[in-house]
Amino acid sequence: MTFQNIETLSWIGDRHGWLRMIDQTLLPTELREIDCRQVETVWEAIKKLRVRGAPAIGIAAAYGVCVGLQTLPQEVDFNVFRTRLNEVVDYLASSRPTAVNLFWALNRMKAKAESFYDSKNISEIRDALFSEAKMIHEEDRRICRAIGKFGQELVRDGDTFLTHCNAGGLATADYGTALAVFFAATEMGKKISVYADETRPLLQGSRLTAWELMQRGIDVTLICDSMAATVMKQGKINGVVVGADRIAANGDTANKIGTYSVAIAARTHRVPFYVAAPVSTFDLTLTDGNSIPIEERDAEEICNGFGKQTAPQGVKVYNPAFDITPAELITGIITEHGIISPVKRENIAKIVQL
Amino acid sequence: MTFQNIETLSWIGDRHGWLRMIDQTLLPTELREIDCRQVETVWEAIKKLRVRGAPAIGIAAAYGVCVGLQTLPQEVDFNVFRTRLNEVVDYLASSRPTAVNLFWALNRMKAKAESFYDSKNISEIRDALFSEAKMIHEEDRRICRAIGKFGQELVRDGDTFLTHCNAGGLATADYGTALAVFFAATEMGKKISVYADETRPLLQGSRLTAWELMQRGIDVTLICDSMAATVMKQGKINGVVVGADRIAANGDTANKIGTYSVAIAARTHRVPFYVAAPVSTFDLTLTDGNSIPIEERDAEEICNGFGKQTAPQGVKVYNPAFDITPAELITGIITEHGIISPVKRENIAKIVQL
Repeated sequence: MTFQNIETLSWIGDRHGWLRMIDQTLLPTELREIDCRQVETVWEAIKKLRVRGAPAIGIAAAYGVCVGLQTLPQEVDFNVFRTRLNEVVDYLASSRPTAVNLFWALNRMKAKAESFYDSKNISEIRDALFSEAKMIHEEDRRICRAIGKFGQELVRDGDTFLTHCNAGGLATADYGTALAVFFAATEMGKKISVYADETRPLLQGSRLTAWELMQRGIDVTLICDSMAATVMKQGKINGVVVGADRIAANGDTANKIGTYSVAIAARTHRVPFYVAAPVSTFDLTLTDGNSIPIEERDAEEICNGFGKQTAPQGVKVYNPAFDITPAELITGIITEHGIISPVKRENIAKIVQL
Repeated sequence: MTFQNIETLSWIGDRHGWLRMIDQTLLPTELREIDCRQVETVWEAIKKLRVRGAPAIGIAAAYGVCVGLQTLPQEVDFNVFRTRLNEVVDYLASSRPTAVNLFWALNRMKAKAESFYDSKNISEIRDALFSEAKMIHEEDRRICRAIGKFGQELVRDGDTFLTHCNAGGLATADYGTALAVFFAATEMGKKISVYADETRPLLQGSRLTAWELMQRGIDVTLICDSMAATVMKQGKINGVVVGADRIAANGDTANKIGTYSVAIAARTHRVPFYVAAPVSTFDLTLTDGNSIPIEERDAEEICNGFGKQTAPQGVKVYNPAFDITPAELITGIITEHGIISPVKRENIAKIVQL
């Protein structure tokens, strides 16, 4: 995504160039870029959430492999090259051990290199790896655009939508998944408004989503998560769009904690509730949401989230990172292949396998 | 409420003594008391939320009148006394202009003084005012105990309840309204657990409720507001108890923002949802919740809540202080006169007018 001509992620120059990214930990108060000319800088950026969001992490890691290989001289022994490649891949994989897209991108880079190992032509392998990273980047861009194109058809001129967390440009190569729907609708000339849940505990909604929407000139109103039901009751909301972390074969959707609560409120107030996600988010090996494990995160996120202790020392905390919204509460799932609606096993299988 | 032998509010000594209170703005990291020997200290404490919660504010103001009159010599002209009394009452009334209990307590003190104006016996009036303040304090204590007594019958040994915001001892003379139910159940020997919503934006749940429950040795788990639906879905919650700011004649209940969202989640998961409040909370002049105005508060509470800016500069914010839970979502209302259930106009009228 481009903000004032700054992209979330970009590669500067040719194969000998470097990865540039927005440092998202400084948002929304400061918009600063980091130039990653060493693989250690990429690793640290992923580790410290300077870049976050599954697709964006994958792209950063792929480019990170190219950066990591630059320490080698142009002419280098094949075995030295292969050792270094494995070292770089393993090192990057250690940055965020639970990020599925990270491993997916690194495996793809490694497989690409291996497909050239017979030739042992280092220069050719380097070119192929650089092309592969650019392709991962470009594919994600196309996915965002396609999700936006399909999703914007659900949005009428004058509508007000609600979203939770950040499934925006900062998380992807282009303009996001859930937010792509709003950006594409705006590009089609529709005038829309968005309510953004702040999204406790890490406030991706207030820090990132509100910021992205303001940058693009979309009317946005920030609320606390607990206010979503009230704005729906007041008749202010025409629809909800959220992203997804993982979707089971029956459509049960894991997404940022609080999504389920929004889905219940939407159903209560007869507000359509959409999930926007690339088909890579579906895990058809999972029968339903019960098979999706719920990751628990550190108590500090809740007790000490704003730089100040806001809970008693030693209080017991439950901090699940996401929740499961059952398929029956989801009006439709917007993918780059089209919209799945009603959300049923057979409709999902059809779209995902396109 | 007593914490390690410290009470939320207490009067030290005889009529010539002073008001002592916990400075709630320092909780949960520091438990410090303030001695109010001047009416200005009481005013500042109410203004700056060092004391908060409708009943507690009323009690502080009543004692504040006694403190304010101590600047006069023992022997004083009646007109001087009356002028000073009016001055003190008006001054205290200016501390928090929207706090209904503040005016209620001050009017009661003034009316008590006026009932003695014929005699013009200053010493007698001073005694009567001091007794009245103590009576306001004592009445609230009895109300808390009665709510606890009735409410604890709804709690079984081994139950886990959920609460939102702080309707606890810090808000009242004794051990609260919603929390009274948990404290009374514990006194009856029932072993219970409580999930406390942190309650954005001002975090009364994490700062105050979690602290009170820990002080009393009750097992408490802190969650973000957006997690309440998930813990209910996991089958962890046997019931919900919350306080109330105002209740209409049909049972529609205004309470801290987020309460409505919890009520919807409770209904979805068939979890009983109770409101605990003194009968003074009912406003029978209001037909239903639609007549209750929704106060909007400052954007800073959401954008800059705990000493750090967490939203883009100038973002539009909607920050309603409370929401309305419709009577149909409320299983019962626990009052000092008994439990109203089902929540219907005629049942309310019967209990409130007891």
